[in-house]
Amino acid sequence: MRLAELSERTGVSVATLKYYLREGLLHPGATVSRTQADYGDSHVERVRLVRALSEVGGLSLATVGRVLEVITTPGQDWITVLETAQRSLVRPREPGADDDGQGRASPWLQSRDWHVDPHDPFLDELDRAWLACDHAGIGLDEERMDHYADQVVGIAEIDVASVPADPEGAVRQVVLGTILLDPVLSALRKLAQQHVSMTRTQRP
Amino acid sequence: MRLAELSERTGVSVATLKYYLREGLLHPGATVSRTQADYGDSHVERVRLVRALSEVGGLSLATVGRVLEVITTPGQDWITVLETAQRSLVRPREPGADDDGQGRASPWLQSRDWHVDPHDPFLDELDRAWLACDHAGIGLDEERMDHYADQVVGIAEIDVASVPADPEGAVRQVVLGTILLDPVLSALRKLAQQHVSMTRTQRP
Repeated sequence: MRLAELSERTGVSVATLKYYLREGLLHPGATVSRTQADYGDSHVERVRLVRALSEVGGLSLATVGRVLEVITTPGQDWITVLETAQRSLVRPREPGADDDGQGRASPWLQSRDWHVDPHDPFLDELDRAWLACDHAGIGLDEERMDHYADQVVGIAEIDVASVPADPEGAVRQVVLGTILLDPVLSALRKLAQQHVSMTRTQRP
Repeated sequence: MRLAELSERTGVSVATLKYYLREGLLHPGATVSRTQADYGDSHVERVRLVRALSEVGGLSLATVGRVLEVITTPGQDWITVLETAQRSLVRPREPGADDDGQGRASPWLQSRDWHVDPHDPFLDELDRAWLACDHAGIGLDEERMDHYADQVVGIAEIDVASVPADPEGAVRQVVLGTILLDPVLSALRKLAQQHVSMTRTQRP
């Protein structure tokens, strides 16, 4: 198909598709003539993936580029890929007056015997997020975190069990699942809150 | 304290604090003289809350303003507040070629007997997020969603059980917890994935 048809099928403008091509987010089509190229289903898939990562996953196009590089490079150990991908997604920490350095996440996870790299950037993320809850006056103590952690381990077990055996499928599943399942779980939590409170209060 | 000290204690620049005051995100200090005002602990708390909601919660300052309005207006029914707050947080849906109108979320939740308003905007969010997973080639079928839903109901039960009895505390907990616990749970999930895969593979 021509670029105009690719635009129609994906709902993405021709100008944006040309931008994706220039930035390497979209692989070139097969050359038809000096000014025309032919695009196929792999291009439709790739455009949808770029949109999913940027719109639903909330990634910048630069980060989308790094993620695509990771999932399209064959022959990688998936635990290493998971770590690399996660690290590239973490926002750099801004030092500030509220930054007290030593957070609660690390000692709390140690008390739970979790196998976590002490330099893992998600420890910092957890510290920041936990501190933000404290600043907002949400009573998020260790006991409540323990209850959440039990449920989240259940979620991680489903995540890990869903990783396919072939290395390329595994990389794809791990990297994309890490990014794109957050919005699914977030929406599901809001709906579950309603379900639970409606059930409890028996509101008509 | 003066504005300069408020800036020092919160790590937020004086220029930004002045902007918060102009936009009504921060309540005025007590007038000391024609050009000076005095700020107290309630201002420190409010600035930290604004930062938490915007930086960790990822909200725009306009949305932060709406959220602050909801939690500082007394005498509200908390289920109504929850619904109002959630609706104001949902991104408006962009119509596009990929928008097939009828999503899988609604029939799937019906099959689970969830008490959910059929016009709830989070149904749309769930549809979008689920579709994005499909476009990314993540095999997120109903069976896997059922497993996730069981865990997420457990999380929602902790959320709902943590709501205090007094109406104002309840509103604060529900609105802020809805926004600020997502980043906690998201970071926790990444750490739990590592813990689960390390435990399974017994990697040294």
